[in-house]
Amino acid sequence: MAVLAHHIPEAYLAAIRREGNDLNITTSFEAGDPDICSALFWLDVPAGLSALPSLRLVLSLGAGVERLTKPGVIPAKAAIGRISNDIQSEGMADYVLLHVLRQHRQLARLQDEQRRRVWEWRLWPRARDVTVGVMGLGRLGSEAARKLSAMGFSVRGWSRSLKRIDGIETFAGTPELPAFLSACHHLVCLLPLTHETENILAAPLFSHLPRGAFLINAGRGAHLDEAALLAALDSGQLAGATLDVLRQEPPTPDHPFFEHPGILLTPHSAVCSTPEQIAPDVVENLRRAERGEPPLYAADRATGY
Amino acid sequence: MAVLAHHIPEAYLAAIRREGNDLNITTSFEAGDPDICSALFWLDVPAGLSALPSLRLVLSLGAGVERLTKPGVIPAKAAIGRISNDIQSEGMADYVLLHVLRQHRQLARLQDEQRRRVWEWRLWPRARDVTVGVMGLGRLGSEAARKLSAMGFSVRGWSRSLKRIDGIETFAGTPELPAFLSACHHLVCLLPLTHETENILAAPLFSHLPRGAFLINAGRGAHLDEAALLAALDSGQLAGATLDVLRQEPPTPDHPFFEHPGILLTPHSAVCSTPEQIAPDVVENLRRAERGEPPLYAADRATGY
Ligand SMILES: NC(=O)c1ccc[n+]([C@@H]2O[C@H](COP(=O)([O-])OP(=O)(O)OC[C@H]3O[C@@H](n4cnc5c(N)ncnc54)[C@H](OP(=O)(O)O)[C@@H]3O)[C@@H](O)[C@H]2O)c1
Ligand SMILES: NC(=O)c1ccc[n+]([C@@H]2O[C@H](COP(=O)([O-])OP(=O)(O)OC[C@H]3O[C@@H](n4cnc5c(N)ncnc54)[C@H](OP(=O)(O)O)[C@@H]3O)[C@@H](O)[C@H]2O)c1
Repeated sequence: MAVLAHHIPEAYLAAIRREGNDLNITTSFEAGDPDICSALFWLDVPAGLSALPSLRLVLSLGAGVERLTKPGVIPAKAAIGRISNDIQSEGMADYVLLHVLRQHRQLARLQDEQRRRVWEWRLWPRARDVTVGVMGLGRLGSEAARKLSAMGFSVRGWSRSLKRIDGIETFAGTPELPAFLSACHHLVCLLPLTHETENILAAPLFSHLPRGAFLINAGRGAHLDEAALLAALDSGQLAGATLDVLRQEPPTPDHPFFEHPGILLTPHSAVCSTPEQIAPDVVENLRRAERGEPPLYAADRATGY
Repeated sequence: MAVLAHHIPEAYLAAIRREGNDLNITTSFEAGDPDICSALFWLDVPAGLSALPSLRLVLSLGAGVERLTKPGVIPAKAAIGRISNDIQSEGMADYVLLHVLRQHRQLARLQDEQRRRVWEWRLWPRARDVTVGVMGLGRLGSEAARKLSAMGFSVRGWSRSLKRIDGIETFAGTPELPAFLSACHHLVCLLPLTHETENILAAPLFSHLPRGAFLINAGRGAHLDEAALLAALDSGQLAGATLDVLRQEPPTPDHPFFEHPGILLTPHSAVCSTPEQIAPDVVENLRRAERGEPPLYAADRATGY
């Protein structure tokens, strides 16, 4: 049995080879090769997957699953794997905490004052009097919610099916979305991108938030209606936004977000995965495929995530 | 028995009166008034304290105790009280966490890239591979150390007498200072200001840190040799600094820190205490004084804090 590793950056491929030194990893293949059981790729789906008779698993290291779960992209017989580990959840929780605290303590305003050589004592609300809402309570969202709660914020979460998490008020489904939003001083999006969640961060949603709320989008760029964000910042409905993801990455240099004083951009790096950090998860999934077992955290074609 | 409330801002005085509505609070007094048992003031020590025969407690709401513990400032028969509560420790821990995370995720650099319309994917070390050192493990420092540790950072602390705190490596006294400093990627100062700690943040101390370390000073402005900070940033020995306190507050508009790209200033607002938040602690101390009991968290004239 063999693993096809298609256009994987050198450092990642080397780490995977070290971790799985018993695996038969090849970087090229003949059409219809009956040995290939798993395919790894970075962003571009290799051509010819459907002609591989033994293919059981595909794993993209550089792209989210939202493109892969669409009909016809990956042959139905192959599972679509995902990389998920505590390092990622911890990194995302740090990111969310940093940006909630930054908004809470109004660093953008303080930095503007520093630029104007103003230095004025001020008061802040206590964390427990501030509500943070987390959209998406999966592996990333639930850990972020827990850390925010441990830091003393009042935390609520929203997901498709109702979750129970100690100390966090939970809501589920579209009918409960307005109630969930109504108290959120900070709103954090950690949803997957599906046809239900695309463009969810738009004018109707913003109108349910308290006036002057802050937004953090670390899900996917297509969750956000970018023009609606600019309008909400202009009108004061939103006070600011931190965006780790954009519809087009990298954005073109003329993107209006670059110079908007209410927007902080981070370069899709809320979670980062070095070669050494993901190699064990990749190899575990490759071994599972060879044994005929399903991968950890397979994406579900029906829900799209 | 009476409480002298000298030049206390109106909102604070009102909250204290509400909380201690049985107390006899006066805002002016006759020389040598035998009724006055406690004196509250904001920044300026009222004249004539030593002539008050029944004075047992002084409490400054606006100034640190470092000025009051100096010989001759407050009559020796009166205890020097301090306000300390969980709201303050929590606020300081949030502040420290925010600024460590901000430095860790290099927000200053990302903001500079945003200004230059650059958007480039990058990797960060894991929190556990980053060491944060906290100088001062009192009520503020120990809580900040605990929260940093709960967030996953490797945390070490330094104090005068050795402390034991779960999960935190502790050091004590001047002889152990170089060893403490040698691993700190981030150094947080939460010391009180005494003759031993004045100007402690200076070239000799910086030279013990790993090259490119970050500094956070939320203790007192006089802990820092401001010229030495500029030199350390210039040489690259320090990578950046966040300063909540300055030698002169507010600083004059020509202060070089305002425009230094490596320095973030916050206006002595790491901890904030609204009238409602401190009134219970003030009133508790006033009641203790009337009963002849020592205040909570009295400052020690011998150590100066
Ligand atoms: N910025 C970055 O660096 C970065 C890195 C990695 C991932 N991400 C993004 O983060 C997303 C979340 O990752 P994850 O691992 O936490 O995903 P996950 O474990 O699959 O969790 C997804 C969560 O979203 C909820 N959800 C899905 N569709 C929904 C809908 N229509 N309405 C309400 N809730 C819905 C799910 O509800 P149920 O619990 O009911 O299923 C679940 O709680 C990823 O999909 C990706 O887009 C970003
Ligand atoms: N930025 C703000 O908004 C703000 C607000 C409030 C306070 N502060 C500052 O924060 C400081 C700390 O407050 P706190 O309530 O935590 O004080 P604290 O409870 O009195 O603790 C002081 C700590 O510093 C240590 N220390 C004192 N002198 C030392 C020395 N020479 N060498 C090594 N360690 C020494 C003490 O050691 P031991 O444990 O051995 O005594 C103790 O751990 C205050 O004094 C004030 O300057 C700033």
